[in-house]
Amino acid sequence: MGPYSFHMENLQICVIMVGLPARGKSLIAQKIVRYLTWLSIDAKCFNVGNYRRIETAHPTADFFDVNNEDGERLRRHAAEAALEDMFRWFEEENGMVGIFDATNTTRKRRDWVLDICRKHNVEPLFVESWCDDEDLIMQNIVDVKTSSPDYVGQDPEQAALDFRNRIRNYEKVYETISERDLTYVKLINVGSQVIINRIQSYLESRIVYYLMNLHIKPRCIWLSRHGESQFNVEGKIGGDSDLSPRGREYSRQLPRLTRMSVGDQPLTVWTSTLKRTQQTAKYLPYRQLTWKALDELDAGQCDGLTYEEIESKYPDDFAARDADKYEYRYPGGESYRDVVIRLEPIIMELERQDNIMIVTHQAVLRCIYAYFMNVPQDKSPWMEVPLHTLIKLEPKAYGTEVTRIKADIPAVSTYREKGQSTKKK
Amino acid sequence: MGPYSFHMENLQICVIMVGLPARGKSLIAQKIVRYLTWLSIDAKCFNVGNYRRIETAHPTADFFDVNNEDGERLRRHAAEAALEDMFRWFEEENGMVGIFDATNTTRKRRDWVLDICRKHNVEPLFVESWCDDEDLIMQNIVDVKTSSPDYVGQDPEQAALDFRNRIRNYEKVYETISERDLTYVKLINVGSQVIINRIQSYLESRIVYYLMNLHIKPRCIWLSRHGESQFNVEGKIGGDSDLSPRGREYSRQLPRLTRMSVGDQPLTVWTSTLKRTQQTAKYLPYRQLTWKALDELDAGQCDGLTYEEIESKYPDDFAARDADKYEYRYPGGESYRDVVIRLEPIIMELERQDNIMIVTHQAVLRCIYAYFMNVPQDKSPWMEVPLHTLIKLEPKAYGTEVTRIKADIPAVSTYREKGQSTKKK
Repeated sequence: MGPYSFHMENLQICVIMVGLPARGKSLIAQKIVRYLTWLSIDAKCFNVGNYRRIETAHPTADFFDVNNEDGERLRRHAAEAALEDMFRWFEEENGMVGIFDATNTTRKRRDWVLDICRKHNVEPLFVESWCDDEDLIMQNIVDVKTSSPDYVGQDPEQAALDFRNRIRNYEKVYETISERDLTYVKLINVGSQVIINRIQSYLESRIVYYLMNLHIKPRCIWLSRHGESQFNVEGKIGGDSDLSPRGREYSRQLPRLTRMSVGDQPLTVWTSTLKRTQQTAKYLPYRQLTWKALDELDAGQCDGLTYEEIESKYPDDFAARDADKYEYRYPGGESYRDVVIRLEPIIMELERQDNIMIVTHQAVLRCIYAYFMNVPQDKSPWMEVPLHTLIKLEPKAYGTEVTRIKADIPAVSTYREKGQSTKKK
Repeated sequence: MGPYSFHMENLQICVIMVGLPARGKSLIAQKIVRYLTWLSIDAKCFNVGNYRRIETAHPTADFFDVNNEDGERLRRHAAEAALEDMFRWFEEENGMVGIFDATNTTRKRRDWVLDICRKHNVEPLFVESWCDDEDLIMQNIVDVKTSSPDYVGQDPEQAALDFRNRIRNYEKVYETISERDLTYVKLINVGSQVIINRIQSYLESRIVYYLMNLHIKPRCIWLSRHGESQFNVEGKIGGDSDLSPRGREYSRQLPRLTRMSVGDQPLTVWTSTLKRTQQTAKYLPYRQLTWKALDELDAGQCDGLTYEEIESKYPDDFAARDADKYEYRYPGGESYRDVVIRLEPIIMELERQDNIMIVTHQAVLRCIYAYFMNVPQDKSPWMEVPLHTLIKLEPKAYGTEVTRIKADIPAVSTYREKGQSTKKK
């Protein structure tokens, strides 16, 4: 548990998305799920479109006309199926935050969802994405016509035209949220204005703060471990040692490597407070900031030891760490979970920023990477992140693209496989 | 620097309060100053009423009538004097966040302030408190008529009547903020709805999040150190030792002590993850939560040592800590500044909560106390907080009231005065 422990209340929350098609609802829903999952909060998205496609795979715009009774019935049926699955998940798997991803553009439809939530004792939180910025909408339409399963194999121009007609059918009946007694967030033109109404619980306030900080301008994030350190060479963990000669070579080559990837774009570099990250970044010709939250996982009593020494001095700890590396907390030190909690403000700030390069440490880098790439907790502590490698992350509408750029400078491997003893065979 | 380092940008911000009289503007302004100051951000409030009172100490309601030219001129004069002082403070003392505390209820007045901000390259952030909840307004009127210097020595009924007329004069010309190109937060009925427009910088987003979380329901906060620990008895710092017999006695008496002060009100108890706080709280019949952020200041390499040992092993560190205890960071450990940064989410959550009791450690308690009592950084690390004492904090409109309740159980003193050597004289 930590400062961002979410166990303050045992509230289950149903996030009900609201908005016309092409307003980024699904993107927002998926980001909430990724953020909460990273913080160990069980979250899951229930997308009504996916349920509707089971029966109606490629509907045309008139399917979404309110006067089309068949369409109306089938859409209602899909919404019911999605909600049923959600409340089963709340009950049977004790889910915390379910996201009901649909347009929910009429008051009548929202009242229906609200009733079901109240019956199940689940807190409803409405998240409306409202947008009148034509450029934003067009960008979304372009994304949808090229990526939506509804238009697979169709002529893109035809798809765009049909999709615009679909939006028009929704616009006819759209009622924006204004009920003062409901808990809601209204995001206007992707965060240029945010209206927050009756937010009560801690978890709600965290979701809202996260949504407030999102932006959709294109940008990239670069991650690098520090160059090889003296402690790396000696096989010791933790500490605050200087770079090795090969590590210094990496720091000298890093500006060229970075420039190849970043080009002429503006960039800010974040390092930890430890010498090895600052020495690694020292030749980078960009603004630099130091964050204590980027310091390496604190190994407590094991700080400065080799894995061999840990295995012989603390054999039980060595085994316990292998059994559950995410939860294992070094005596007097930290677990991966602890690191994630202290990294939460870093992630929040990354969401707000433009291009950022982070020079940090193995465990911290794994946690940041896990957030962007949605890596599950049992995998992230075992991820291989070699030294002397620059990782580029490019967030896109439906996932993050990764590029790894290896510097041609040898380094020791600090990777130890699960179950691998340090003892020579 | 840390996760909440505010040195991301070097923006100076002018917070411009907006709202009718009796809408809690000054209270909000003072809370922002206290919060930012605690986070080492230079913030200062410039209250136009105080400037106006230099020339007009006890105006009647008609002074505030827009048609009263003399009143209008004097009020404008006061506003100019306040702004002049603010911009001198920005320039000469490099202030970060200046708060212009006045009604600023007309668009014309706000445009005037906006112009001056832009000329000085200072970011304007409008904070409007809008309220139509008659109970809230009445409560504020009662507060004002009993506490405002404008009505000192006057009949309270007359004062209330005059104050209502003053509000009416403002209502005639009040224009709420709606300019979409401005950066603003509108707090409606003390946070039941919040509208956030064009928030850009990190510091702005933190101020806004803080404002989102404020409430004004009456409640109290109780603080206690853990009972005397084995390490306390041995004069050692840090560690994770058990309570001493006298510490256990405190834990047994704590429920009675607490009940005397709390009565039948609901309460939640927060402890750190260390044994001595959990053992202290274990007989308290309330819901309990554990926060890693409440753990004691990490003494790094000095953990488990006595002050004597620190003084002889690390004499330079011992002296450096005395010279600047707030900034001094133990090798491999933390400074008071680091503790404040990791306590920020705790403070935020305390602002959101009702009655809370915190059982924690000397340094952590000093930092929390410093937030509520506005204790400056050079004083807070030297504050005396004896063991076996329950502290009650009661936030009121114009300050926090403190009560100390001492249990009749002896304990060692863990207090060491500045400059006090550990060597026997």
